[in-house]
Amino acid sequence: MDRLRPDQVIDDKTSLRTYECDGLTGYRVVPALVVLPESTEEVALAVRLCAGQGVPYVARGAGTGLSGGALPVADGIVICLARMRAVLEVDVANQRMTVQPGVTNAEISKVVAQHRLYFAPDPSSQSVCTIGGNIAENSGGAHCLKYGFTTQHVYAMTVVLPDGSVVEVGGGFAEGVGPDLRGVIIGSEGTLAIATAVTVRLLRTPEAVRTLVADFDSADKAGEAVSAIIAAGIVPAAAEMLDALSIQACEAAVGAGFSTDAAAALLVELDGPEADCEDGYTQVQRRCREAGATHVRLADTPHERARVWAGRKAAFAAMGRISPDYFVQDGVVPRTRLGEMLRRMQQMADDAGLRVANVFHAGDGNLHPLVLYSAAAPGEAERGEQLSTAIAELCVEMGGSITGEHGVGTDKACSMPSMFSEEDLRVMLRVRTALDPDGISNPGKIFPTPRLCGEKPGPYRPHALETAGVIERV
Amino acid sequence: MDRLRPDQVIDDKTSLRTYECDGLTGYRVVPALVVLPESTEEVALAVRLCAGQGVPYVARGAGTGLSGGALPVADGIVICLARMRAVLEVDVANQRMTVQPGVTNAEISKVVAQHRLYFAPDPSSQSVCTIGGNIAENSGGAHCLKYGFTTQHVYAMTVVLPDGSVVEVGGGFAEGVGPDLRGVIIGSEGTLAIATAVTVRLLRTPEAVRTLVADFDSADKAGEAVSAIIAAGIVPAAAEMLDALSIQACEAAVGAGFSTDAAAALLVELDGPEADCEDGYTQVQRRCREAGATHVRLADTPHERARVWAGRKAAFAAMGRISPDYFVQDGVVPRTRLGEMLRRMQQMADDAGLRVANVFHAGDGNLHPLVLYSAAAPGEAERGEQLSTAIAELCVEMGGSITGEHGVGTDKACSMPSMFSEEDLRVMLRVRTALDPDGISNPGKIFPTPRLCGEKPGPYRPHALETAGVIERV
Repeated sequence: MDRLRPDQVIDDKTSLRTYECDGLTGYRVVPALVVLPESTEEVALAVRLCAGQGVPYVARGAGTGLSGGALPVADGIVICLARMRAVLEVDVANQRMTVQPGVTNAEISKVVAQHRLYFAPDPSSQSVCTIGGNIAENSGGAHCLKYGFTTQHVYAMTVVLPDGSVVEVGGGFAEGVGPDLRGVIIGSEGTLAIATAVTVRLLRTPEAVRTLVADFDSADKAGEAVSAIIAAGIVPAAAEMLDALSIQACEAAVGAGFSTDAAAALLVELDGPEADCEDGYTQVQRRCREAGATHVRLADTPHERARVWAGRKAAFAAMGRISPDYFVQDGVVPRTRLGEMLRRMQQMADDAGLRVANVFHAGDGNLHPLVLYSAAAPGEAERGEQLSTAIAELCVEMGGSITGEHGVGTDKACSMPSMFSEEDLRVMLRVRTALDPDGISNPGKIFPTPRLCGEKPGPYRPHALETAGVIERV
Repeated sequence: MDRLRPDQVIDDKTSLRTYECDGLTGYRVVPALVVLPESTEEVALAVRLCAGQGVPYVARGAGTGLSGGALPVADGIVICLARMRAVLEVDVANQRMTVQPGVTNAEISKVVAQHRLYFAPDPSSQSVCTIGGNIAENSGGAHCLKYGFTTQHVYAMTVVLPDGSVVEVGGGFAEGVGPDLRGVIIGSEGTLAIATAVTVRLLRTPEAVRTLVADFDSADKAGEAVSAIIAAGIVPAAAEMLDALSIQACEAAVGAGFSTDAAAALLVELDGPEADCEDGYTQVQRRCREAGATHVRLADTPHERARVWAGRKAAFAAMGRISPDYFVQDGVVPRTRLGEMLRRMQQMADDAGLRVANVFHAGDGNLHPLVLYSAAAPGEAERGEQLSTAIAELCVEMGGSITGEHGVGTDKACSMPSMFSEEDLRVMLRVRTALDPDGISNPGKIFPTPRLCGEKPGPYRPHALETAGVIERV
């Protein structure tokens, strides 16, 4: 096989526009070409063509990423994995499954649901986002508090490196052998390799689940409840918090049943053996009441539970109900400083004359502040963007991180020096350069580039970014 | 600071002999020099001196490793981290702690026990092995079935690279940013970097623990019980199995209370909330009886529980009671093939005229076959070594791995090509070379070298291995 079929190549301007961005608003780049490989060999072929010509490429799954990790490079190729949707192997007894990268996160769990197994990482976009994208971003979700991120649930991968070679990384088990290449590729946002087959770890569906919603008259009190629950040694499957603005947006959009007069809603889920859940429910309820919850209710039917989660997972999209435009921020602070962080964000929002809604994974201190603005109001977009960036920087200042789960991508490459020293970044680049010496695999993402960040030239100048331009039509 | 004090340098032949091997029997190399740094800066100084002269170095913790990962290089330096034993920071509220690499695994848990916190990875050597060594080998232990390996419990590290530079990898949280350098260094057996400060994740001490021992009249039945327990969705904290020979050895050594007339003993531990443990205990007991357990007993006092675990953890050392010499093997097979593996090992042992004792982490298919022999009997050591290697290769043939938790080190470098293709190994070496271009950091470990494995020259010939010799005395 040395070429792709015509129906696997998109090169007309109109169709190319479909690929000009991912879930990050505000950035658009039309690629020169999109290819749609259907096998590992075809991905390797596309990469080899790029490598031979020094053409940059960007791998893309469903394009739901929120940091611009799949933003195309001008004059570059998009390698879209959407057609690679086959389930390659299901090994029920050893609780693992091998799939192509275009299989959606939710589909994995659906295939094995009959065996009472499921795939734990659950980004809000799980019904559409792909496992390939989850690997690129090391995706998390509400249940990562108890179950960890994508990297904890991927045993092995077949990957195509930037020189077009195909290698296997990881193994069939939790135990690794030698340096963990699997781990360094997961979360590297397509800068090191493209996964073309993925063996995931499957967990047993828990025997029982309890989902409760507690209302509070202040976000601080909800935060205290979370701290008290965790300090008691309870490990909830999820502990999510919505502030008043988010509650209003969710109710307007999906009517999930949150109390619109509450200042904060805390959604706590417990899962595991029945006895454990029952006991945990009693304890969580008590901690919520002690922290000042005005109301605690159990979502006690599968329907009720689904409705609450639909509300939570629709939170970002629901913002459209209360604001014409918004920026999604993603940062982490130590859980113990959540209350302080909320107060300081409120102050910053007031100073900027803007509203900030908050939806977050309270259990692990992962905030998703949504900066609301109107693009129609002169200057609001700029003020909103500044506020959003200031919030991310405040996270670092408070001992946290510029991203919890959305990744660095295009959006935050220029914020990397606020978290890492030049030396730290240089080491990341040495690993990057070892696998991608010419910088053709998703250039401009994660690593701050002088041209984009307006800084002095650093140690790494992706060759391809500078010289790309010639596209060999396949 | 540009030099070490005289008491930080060992160069007399007698004292150097103390460092000639680690826990792997059969290999001894006297280093040219041992240095004992006390800070990150002193480690960096020692590494810079080596880098400047092209002298290979090997980092060493307590020297308890079982694969020769800390075996010195002739004419090279040993950088011993044993004096770096300070606890740098304890952050109880965020459940994390930063320590120097020479702190022992058990010491970490001891420091925070008063706060009902602990460090989960628990190698059998935990009372003496160091966190630095745990990082090098990505150590596991009995409770890794539920809690995972060292890499799941390390947030961040300060590391010294082979060029002497000091960098920070990872962050203060579970969520990573950029490529996971933390993860690629953990388990790289000192070939990429030396950790000089480590921030670990602490877990809440479980509210309750249940430890039970079930006797079986065949190892197969014990294996079936493990499969049934896991298929029922129960996640034990540990599921350990001892065969008849191991039981005899343990009883002779520590009198742990195992029944010496059983063909296999299964030790299952449950931890978590009280209600969960009670329920789990009833269920595990039932599955054991259904699988044919002849006797099930609960180790129901802390003293009883400690005694059972002391028996299990002393199993390797106890072999001295039933055999003058033994080789410790470490491999993994899919849990579903445990019974078949045991039968085939028995056959191989019979054919070789040797005895093989088995102690293993049954829950995750990690076997520790102990090949018993007498060095005094002509030819037995050779037959024993061949049998041990054949068992590791059978693990790979059965879809498993040459190592579960002891690492590759010196012992298994030559078996790497049985698990990985040349291309797969080449990529590992590219990452290795990116951080250690001259191959001075623990050369000869993990990666098969032509000279040692008697193969044709491969893509990587550590420069330092060939040219080392001149030692600059500090």
